[in-house]
Amino acid sequence: MSQVNLQCRNCQVIFDYGMDLLHCRYCDVPLDVQYNGEKRTYVEVSGYQVRMPFDERTSLFSLGEGNTPVIELSKLGSFLGLDRLRAKLEFMNPTGSYKDRGTAVMLTVARELGVTEIVEDSSGNAGASVSAYAARAGIKCHIFAPATAPAAKIKQIRVYGAEVHSIEGTRDDTTNAAVDFYKKEGLVYASHAWSPFFSEGTKTFTFEVIGQYNGEVPDHIVFPVGNGGLYLGAWRGFSELIATGEIDRMPRLHAVQSENISPIASEFIGDKWDIETIRPTIAGGIAVAAPARAGQVLDVLRETNGMAVMVDEVAVADMQRMLARKEGVFAEPTSAAAFAGLSMLLSEGTISKGDSVLVPVTGFGLKDEVRFSDD
Amino acid sequence: MSQVNLQCRNCQVIFDYGMDLLHCRYCDVPLDVQYNGEKRTYVEVSGYQVRMPFDERTSLFSLGEGNTPVIELSKLGSFLGLDRLRAKLEFMNPTGSYKDRGTAVMLTVARELGVTEIVEDSSGNAGASVSAYAARAGIKCHIFAPATAPAAKIKQIRVYGAEVHSIEGTRDDTTNAAVDFYKKEGLVYASHAWSPFFSEGTKTFTFEVIGQYNGEVPDHIVFPVGNGGLYLGAWRGFSELIATGEIDRMPRLHAVQSENISPIASEFIGDKWDIETIRPTIAGGIAVAAPARAGQVLDVLRETNGMAVMVDEVAVADMQRMLARKEGVFAEPTSAAAFAGLSMLLSEGTISKGDSVLVPVTGFGLKDEVRFSDD
Repeated sequence: MSQVNLQCRNCQVIFDYGMDLLHCRYCDVPLDVQYNGEKRTYVEVSGYQVRMPFDERTSLFSLGEGNTPVIELSKLGSFLGLDRLRAKLEFMNPTGSYKDRGTAVMLTVARELGVTEIVEDSSGNAGASVSAYAARAGIKCHIFAPATAPAAKIKQIRVYGAEVHSIEGTRDDTTNAAVDFYKKEGLVYASHAWSPFFSEGTKTFTFEVIGQYNGEVPDHIVFPVGNGGLYLGAWRGFSELIATGEIDRMPRLHAVQSENISPIASEFIGDKWDIETIRPTIAGGIAVAAPARAGQVLDVLRETNGMAVMVDEVAVADMQRMLARKEGVFAEPTSAAAFAGLSMLLSEGTISKGDSVLVPVTGFGLKDEVRFSDD
Repeated sequence: MSQVNLQCRNCQVIFDYGMDLLHCRYCDVPLDVQYNGEKRTYVEVSGYQVRMPFDERTSLFSLGEGNTPVIELSKLGSFLGLDRLRAKLEFMNPTGSYKDRGTAVMLTVARELGVTEIVEDSSGNAGASVSAYAARAGIKCHIFAPATAPAAKIKQIRVYGAEVHSIEGTRDDTTNAAVDFYKKEGLVYASHAWSPFFSEGTKTFTFEVIGQYNGEVPDHIVFPVGNGGLYLGAWRGFSELIATGEIDRMPRLHAVQSENISPIASEFIGDKWDIETIRPTIAGGIAVAAPARAGQVLDVLRETNGMAVMVDEVAVADMQRMLARKEGVFAEPTSAAAFAGLSMLLSEGTISKGDSVLVPVTGFGLKDEVRFSDD
């Protein structure tokens, strides 16, 4: 038996370690990494030994990801009426987004398994991240992207040498085309939305946070959530630290979506979400109409006493501008959305003035068009 | 007497601490930080106590700069015929370039001195960096830029709220306009090329390198050099570590320029450099026709047994492509130029197969247009 298996969180059935199976054969939900047996692989993150889902003889296939700074946002905090606001600058990753944490672990497993060609679908950060790590690993990479994806992001994906398949239609049509292609060609689907290894990889975020907070736990963390890649990984990290007794409580993990595409936030508040109501959003990183791990995000929201909120386009653009002009932080609109959500959580009383709040800035503003106008 | 003064490296005359004087009243060369007296300010970098030129009651005004990773480039190394090639990913800084190290220290001093409005001239990374830190500090910022500067870089400068003054004519005309403006308006010239504090700030690079090499000294470091901002700071760091006995030797510090704008490399090999021979280069970060600290760079080249080489445009574009496609590193053309220079240093025998070589990747490729074509 391998030291690691994959498990369905719904029916608890356990499947073999590998990259071929992405969802439960019975429930159709995405699988999670499940550790077992004696052997363990650990990497050191901020002084913690962090369990990893690859063989102990394998070392992490790194491009220098992680180890991002936490900075004070005293001016923005003061503007919002918050005494202790900090940001973790996740855009300071090798391809400019937090995705590199997940990709590093997913590609470590791919190399270990001798994978030579992968397929991913993305219109942005995940595509660039997977393309970069695949290049470094010498793995041929196909990125399926909507024909409407921003030119700048497609350009970055191409830079690393991935073959870009441009697909007309909706974002779902792109995913379907990718799935058809990997099945037809017998390739591995290295999906940031579905892969249990990607989801597991982002947990390093949390160990760094606790190191940077000197063992303290922030009261709230406010995430932009599309597929929940960072949200779920962060929760896993906190769960592990609680299990080992390193920390004694879970922060409240909040999720922010765009009101134009809000499957998780709508379900959270009990509203009916109709995929036909989708409208465009400048927050492209959270424009996910049917998140593979929506159910898991909703469970974590409830478990951690988190809230899910929806923000409008004007609030996102205003926050992007304010972050740059007040704090010198050039965030993607997707990341600015989290701060717009924070503002709502303060207004509605979920977060109070004296609470300690952390917001990850998940992607670099350089990757997108600038949407706010000059003075 | 302040704990810090400014000194002319030519005539050794010492001037008072401040931001008003940038060059020696007698020799016209840029000044350097000179430490004296009992009191000292230190910041911790990779476990080393690093001396800083601001008051001990002042803390570094940080935006999360530094602490960048060093990664192995085994595929590119193997292609070039080098066993131990590493890169330090300096583009993983808050504004996407190494400049943030120097800006952090320069703006710390500006805040300490109560400066409220600054002027800088730049067509790219330095402008974005100074603009970002000024925004965070609440300091009004004027960036003078050539009318021909890349739109993407000007956009980033504007994002942080700086007032951009677009100047027709040569790069020198831009500098002259900035100088006229700061003098006329009685403002502070926060010049990355001239400020002794900027130059001092980049030395943190070296302390991190020695930490990442576990106390070993790489045999060679190959820098892209325009104004020599990182080159000189790195040298200062090594000089301090040798002075305190932490390391016992200086690496050879090499400088790479574009053959289209090569004031330092030309003088190094004894060629006459004529400013009229300037041609455009895709390596915009080293397109400096009259570097303020050229004399100092030449001295360090001689002291460290470094070489200065010039590279052509095709080699730069090829190296940018190869870094992305082989290693997953999306470098600015300016940073790719250093690797093109490395290739020359290998060909001519300055660097040998078994030597340990480090190259800083100074700026993110996202900041520039992509110049190489797709497959």
